[in-house]
Amino acid sequence: MNEERIITLLTDFSTKDSYVGQMKGVILSINPCVKIIDITHEIEPQDIREAAFVLKEYYQYFPYGTIHVAIVDPEVGGKRRPLVCEHNGHIFIGPDNGIFTLVLDDKAEIYHIENRAFMLPRISNTFHGRDVFSPVAAHLSKGIPIASLGEKIEKFTILENCFPLIYTDIIYGEIVRFDRFGNAITNIDEKTLDGFIKDRGFKVSVGKKEFKNIKKTYFEGEFSCLIGSSGYLEFAYYKGSIKDKLGIWKGDEVIIKIL
Amino acid sequence: MNEERIITLLTDFSTKDSYVGQMKGVILSINPCVKIIDITHEIEPQDIREAAFVLKEYYQYFPYGTIHVAIVDPEVGGKRRPLVCEHNGHIFIGPDNGIFTLVLDDKAEIYHIENRAFMLPRISNTFHGRDVFSPVAAHLSKGIPIASLGEKIEKFTILENCFPLIYTDIIYGEIVRFDRFGNAITNIDEKTLDGFIKDRGFKVSVGKKEFKNIKKTYFEGEFSCLIGSSGYLEFAYYKGSIKDKLGIWKGDEVIIKIL
Amino acid sequence: MNEERIITLLTDFSTKDSYVGQMKGVILSINPCVKIIDITHEIEPQDIREAAFVLKEYYQYFPYGTIHVAIVDPEVGGKRRPLVCEHNGHIFIGPDNGIFTLVLDDKAEIYHIENRAFMLPRISNTFHGRDVFSPVAAHLSKGIPIASLGEKIEKFTILENCFPLIYTDIIYGEIVRFDRFGNAITNIDEKTLDGFIKDRGFKVSVGKKEFKNIKKTYFEGEFSCLIGSSGYLEFAYYKGSIKDKLGIWKGDEVIIKIL
Repeated sequence: MNEERIITLLTDFSTKDSYVGQMKGVILSINPCVKIIDITHEIEPQDIREAAFVLKEYYQYFPYGTIHVAIVDPEVGGKRRPLVCEHNGHIFIGPDNGIFTLVLDDKAEIYHIENRAFMLPRISNTFHGRDVFSPVAAHLSKGIPIASLGEKIEKFTILENCFPLIYTDIIYGEIVRFDRFGNAITNIDEKTLDGFIKDRGFKVSVGKKEFKNIKKTYFEGEFSCLIGSSGYLEFAYYKGSIKDKLGIWKGDEVIIKIL
Repeated sequence: MNEERIITLLTDFSTKDSYVGQMKGVILSINPCVKIIDITHEIEPQDIREAAFVLKEYYQYFPYGTIHVAIVDPEVGGKRRPLVCEHNGHIFIGPDNGIFTLVLDDKAEIYHIENRAFMLPRISNTFHGRDVFSPVAAHLSKGIPIASLGEKIEKFTILENCFPLIYTDIIYGEIVRFDRFGNAITNIDEKTLDGFIKDRGFKVSVGKKEFKNIKKTYFEGEFSCLIGSSGYLEFAYYKGSIKDKLGIWKGDEVIIKIL
Repeated sequence: MNEERIITLLTDFSTKDSYVGQMKGVILSINPCVKIIDITHEIEPQDIREAAFVLKEYYQYFPYGTIHVAIVDPEVGGKRRPLVCEHNGHIFIGPDNGIFTLVLDDKAEIYHIENRAFMLPRISNTFHGRDVFSPVAAHLSKGIPIASLGEKIEKFTILENCFPLIYTDIIYGEIVRFDRFGNAITNIDEKTLDGFIKDRGFKVSVGKKEFKNIKKTYFEGEFSCLIGSSGYLEFAYYKGSIKDKLGIWKGDEVIIKIL
């Protein structure tokens, strides 16, 4: 048995079109031995924050050395920089628009991709997923040094709305997205919540609904407020969509208040 | 050329979220040499019966030794048992909620997964696909004996509505699901139908529509009643959706009556 | 590292059902060492032209020797011929219904698949993707000669509406499809456009909208008319769907007129 290098793909391209197919072709033409793993191509079009959360959720489950290509790129062809980053034993490739907000920190090694030797010969203005990011991923999977791709840089774009506002007695968070089951996932993570609540009484508000405790599973009552499998506070409606049931939306405020 | 072990994935998670990506990461971290094959992640949320039919349709086309992970798991975190089953040369992994109704019988070897050594160190209440079923599949693909996972059990959950009611002169079946083309697939299989009709005249009713013969292809007339590629009776509307055309739904009764 | 043979899959089956899973099982049962690459299963049901354009867009990015299975097959079970074609170092497998209009020309080697030794033992009337095309692809990936599949033929079906009508001072094209972002993609390619316009002034009309220049990126103004990444003229609405915005449809006329 041989161990192939892994490249994961996260995009908002959907699989309706040929975009993802073109990327896979470019990758396999450069390194036919790589294992391409589809994560999702169903990120809501141009929702960089959603991609940032999804990326954070899965990357850590992959083996060290995995190359994660993450592309939600509304400013493709503009001035945003193409990046390759190494952090925690993983490699991340994508545009510098905040998509890496939740997976990088000060210790990450970040490079601005500039070396055209590792891109396709002709670079379009509209599809760097194919022309820049895919060939760079494929070349990295063959072992080129990350530093050969361009200059090392210090700062990367951070999306501020990935984080809740935390005060002594109140947290202001947001609904980031709805999963397939209609569960509403927030930007408030378990650690933040535990550190904030301690042993105090509290109230969680979303839309017109209030919760006074955090449940363990999806079926302890009609509505639940619980820590989902990804470690973030979420709201669920047993066997249905809480989105439809409560009329709440992406971006709606979630408040946790000490009583 | 090397021959990798195959793990197939059937879920109702969609690929919109990171759930499937997390499962793939867990599997590849344990066995980077396995071949992961997506079947579908678009089972209608929590429709165990639909998953049971889809699983039956494809599993037999895979090579012996394939590991089929099938997860539609509305009671995750509750008392339903996690199972691993060996039957007909294939391995099946998933919750004991009826999802294996159509692929197992008395001869299947069934084990209750209990050995935490083959699960993730931390097991959530909400995502056993990642924490239990994926690691078990990956360890099995590396060759651990199936009996090392837990105790052998005798009975598994059966979904009664997977089968039609058959009398001397009448069959009561149901529409199980609609495929992508809008064809309505029933729970009445070809063998049952042939054994019932023999050479007698018959009438098939669904909604307000009646059929007096079984066709061979989708384009012999506007509406067809035929045995689909999976061996079940289905209803089709040429170049359109019979669901929309007749206003019929999942669960609607299908009656076959001898004239 | 080993180099597996690649089979790409393009269908209108969706991944909602077991159809694609069945095909993958058939392929891997014949050749467990092949690399199966999903392109899309979301071609609009029975839209052969859309498949023809998508196939053209991605195939050329794959390595030589790749086997491309393309199935949109409304007349399955009827008289249309199953084909295998070799052209430009790639192999194409699918029905002879126009799906290969944009990837083949006079120099292609085309064979009518007739040799039942390379099909499944039982061939249904409704699913040649599983019973004919998948096993043929798998056997080809193991190295059987293409000529062993059947008789060489000279002509294949061409879809005329893949091409615009070009006159001295006017082009009549069509919207072929909308991509995930709602961009409207036409059947007018860059080369045709350049050869037509030269340095003359022009006007592009679609629905009630007119454009007088071709832009470079998606964000130079609210509406754009540009050459998309696949080399065809397309219309876009920045951060939204031009389909919804202009009320235009697949098949709508696109006119380019010299002023």
